[in-house]
Amino acid sequence: MPKINQIRTPIVLVNFKTYLEGTGKKALELAKTAEEVSSETNTCIGVAVQYVDIPTIAQAVSIPVFAQHIDPVNYGGFTGHVLPEAVKEAGAVGTLINHSEKRLKLADIDGAIARARELGLVSVVCSNNATVSAAAAALQPNMIAVEPPELIGTGIPVSKAKPEVVSGTVELVKRVNPKVVVLCGAGITAGEDVAAALKLGTKGVLVASGIVKAKDQYNVLRQFAEAITKT
Amino acid sequence: MPKINQIRTPIVLVNFKTYLEGTGKKALELAKTAEEVSSETNTCIGVAVQYVDIPTIAQAVSIPVFAQHIDPVNYGGFTGHVLPEAVKEAGAVGTLINHSEKRLKLADIDGAIARARELGLVSVVCSNNATVSAAAAALQPNMIAVEPPELIGTGIPVSKAKPEVVSGTVELVKRVNPKVVVLCGAGITAGEDVAAALKLGTKGVLVASGIVKAKDQYNVLRQFAEAITKT
Amino acid sequence: MPKINQIRTPIVLVNFKTYLEGTGKKALELAKTAEEVSSETNTCIGVAVQYVDIPTIAQAVSIPVFAQHIDPVNYGGFTGHVLPEAVKEAGAVGTLINHSEKRLKLADIDGAIARARELGLVSVVCSNNATVSAAAAALQPNMIAVEPPELIGTGIPVSKAKPEVVSGTVELVKRVNPKVVVLCGAGITAGEDVAAALKLGTKGVLVASGIVKAKDQYNVLRQFAEAITKT
Amino acid sequence: MPKINQIRTPIVLVNFKTYLEGTGKKALELAKTAEEVSSETNTCIGVAVQYVDIPTIAQAVSIPVFAQHIDPVNYGGFTGHVLPEAVKEAGAVGTLINHSEKRLKLADIDGAIARARELGLVSVVCSNNATVSAAAAALQPNMIAVEPPELIGTGIPVSKAKPEVVSGTVELVKRVNPKVVVLCGAGITAGEDVAAALKLGTKGVLVASGIVKAKDQYNVLRQFAEAITKT
Repeated sequence: MPKINQIRTPIVLVNFKTYLEGTGKKALELAKTAEEVSSETNTCIGVAVQYVDIPTIAQAVSIPVFAQHIDPVNYGGFTGHVLPEAVKEAGAVGTLINHSEKRLKLADIDGAIARARELGLVSVVCSNNATVSAAAAALQPNMIAVEPPELIGTGIPVSKAKPEVVSGTVELVKRVNPKVVVLCGAGITAGEDVAAALKLGTKGVLVASGIVKAKDQYNVLRQFAEAITKT
Repeated sequence: MPKINQIRTPIVLVNFKTYLEGTGKKALELAKTAEEVSSETNTCIGVAVQYVDIPTIAQAVSIPVFAQHIDPVNYGGFTGHVLPEAVKEAGAVGTLINHSEKRLKLADIDGAIARARELGLVSVVCSNNATVSAAAAALQPNMIAVEPPELIGTGIPVSKAKPEVVSGTVELVKRVNPKVVVLCGAGITAGEDVAAALKLGTKGVLVASGIVKAKDQYNVLRQFAEAITKT
Repeated sequence: MPKINQIRTPIVLVNFKTYLEGTGKKALELAKTAEEVSSETNTCIGVAVQYVDIPTIAQAVSIPVFAQHIDPVNYGGFTGHVLPEAVKEAGAVGTLINHSEKRLKLADIDGAIARARELGLVSVVCSNNATVSAAAAALQPNMIAVEPPELIGTGIPVSKAKPEVVSGTVELVKRVNPKVVVLCGAGITAGEDVAAALKLGTKGVLVASGIVKAKDQYNVLRQFAEAITKT
Repeated sequence: MPKINQIRTPIVLVNFKTYLEGTGKKALELAKTAEEVSSETNTCIGVAVQYVDIPTIAQAVSIPVFAQHIDPVNYGGFTGHVLPEAVKEAGAVGTLINHSEKRLKLADIDGAIARARELGLVSVVCSNNATVSAAAAALQPNMIAVEPPELIGTGIPVSKAKPEVVSGTVELVKRVNPKVVVLCGAGITAGEDVAAALKLGTKGVLVASGIVKAKDQYNVLRQFAEAITKT
């Protein structure tokens, strides 16, 4: 039996942010829902959760758990920083880097990717457009998730409203580094948005409010997963 | 019987930073050592641990567990930020704010203190000199820990090398807001440094490498605790 | 004859920001208009201009010219930073610090005020509320300008919409350090807003779009100045 | 007769930082010295000067004047920021971006390059290693200056101590975007360091203390220029 803990593509990566529905006990419940859908549909669903929720969730579910950020630091005097080793020991298998709500300096993105690689953490670098995606690709992360900031949280899906940003990212990233997996995000709330993203050449989506703030999280996630299995 | 989980003064607050000896399983062991010394000597010893280590440690020990930082945010779209509610739900009873390795903007210190107050988290604002301590005191935190950055991690104790910074802080803070508890830190490695800190008018110390990197963590903590009980 | 270059209170301090009407040649024109009104009404009007415009404007007008920010650095390796000595040599007599569009870390506000004091530059620290104003007062700047960020650029005058923030600032600052001059800003567009600000105990206003974006800059400035002379 | 104001390669770009010898009147003198050497040797020497010194220096000399940084902003409410239009109006023809002493977020580097391009300012993006240089190249700047931060200001020339960083940058940048000109910097103090840089495939050097802090600025600059003319 394949371990579903492995990260595969296509992937639905759910960013819990610091939403009420993505914190503490509710985060655990949502992670279990994601695991359920992942298991039922045999699709890869990952969850990017708050730091303090990583240990509990990583122990409770078998789907991939991501941190929302790591700092490019090593063991040492870095009070308040997010040490990659600590995140890994707590059970995360990957991490977002440079989310639009947690933008990093270029040298620090490079450093964070390098640290993730060193520890075997899957790095998902967020970017705001095709050009920046190409730049990020040169840093050799595992994945890039392009998200036009102006669409985040709007419910206007990037895969329909700005398909050229998505396809442009796919193309530029392939040119710089064909091994890098491209995801897209922002405004993704329905199965058809996911299908549209895959048709544009991505290998999945990064989604937050579309799932976390959904009235029926199970149903929306299920739609997302089915869009993936059908594509 | 008094709950030892209560934060009392004088206090020894141990900042685990991101030291190897302050991460994951080793962090848990060190927290248990701190609990042991606290219990044996009936002194208050708190531990400021990495975010991902908060839930495990807070469940395992009865001494006060602090976060090393919180962001001045509420539930919402704040990927990668440290949500005060999450830190509290994970079991922390307080937090450092504005540590010299995680300096914040003035308005954000104000915001973080306000959020801590709202949630009943004890706020310990770090400052670099007496004047900045006075400024911080105006923001009404519970405690201020003055730490001259140039002495941090040196083993040269602030309470002996710069007693005027410590006593100046005690005096200025009292003038602005007499309710604020003053601690000091930087270079504290021995019981006599703790005793000197108390004699200068502080109510305890913020210590990191002096304990975390000590060959015999138990013994040094024990010395610290005894310095407190004897003063 | 008194030098009108001296900073006196009450003061109208006009922040040119990076507005089109506050850049380059237009900045010079606006500064000359301010000088004209200052001279006609015998009121103190200062202008806070972009770095590159300081030398030209400081040479062309006799009213006080401020920088919009300084960095807490000394001569040395600080590429891209704003060296206080350079700003002074270019002709500025003071500087804004910690404007809401250029927030600084607490220790850096302390450092910038100290550097300004060392060089004889008048420091005007911006703050977002009464509590933060009190904190800033402990750092011994010359002036504090309280500006609720939510009102900046709205045309809703702080002195009418949030008089309690203004009077609270005046009161708290006086308690911490009675020598510090309090200004207020945000939404100030008419003479009556200036009058209201003075009645609340301030010694003047910090204004930007209300003057810089006004159709008739001369007339609005004149109104402001008359509000001051009448109060 | 060719205008020497044009930026040509090979180029010696002198970063004045905030050195005493690079501020105000001394900055003007040094810029004139650079112009003299440039004229005598018919080499391109640019100067990256402090914001407040741009107008005076740009008016006084005919060699290219650069800003040390621009912010990715437009006309508007950006107090304390460096508006590209203002820098251009003051006479700069280009700008450093992301110097190791003024690191930017990735999206802001993209934004600053775009703004420079829009205004016809030559963009010189600084980077810390070959991988980051490749990332920067994807953003389509005019030039990239690779400078290992650990060598900056040491007098240990990058072109001799870390030739693989320089040649690696040349190679990776060419692969991503062959139009981008590569410079190198850090520790360059002698003509032979410049010659070594050119042999490694760069089109010039970014230099600071090696010239600005030199006892005889003219002589060292002359050596640099001669190294260029001989190569």
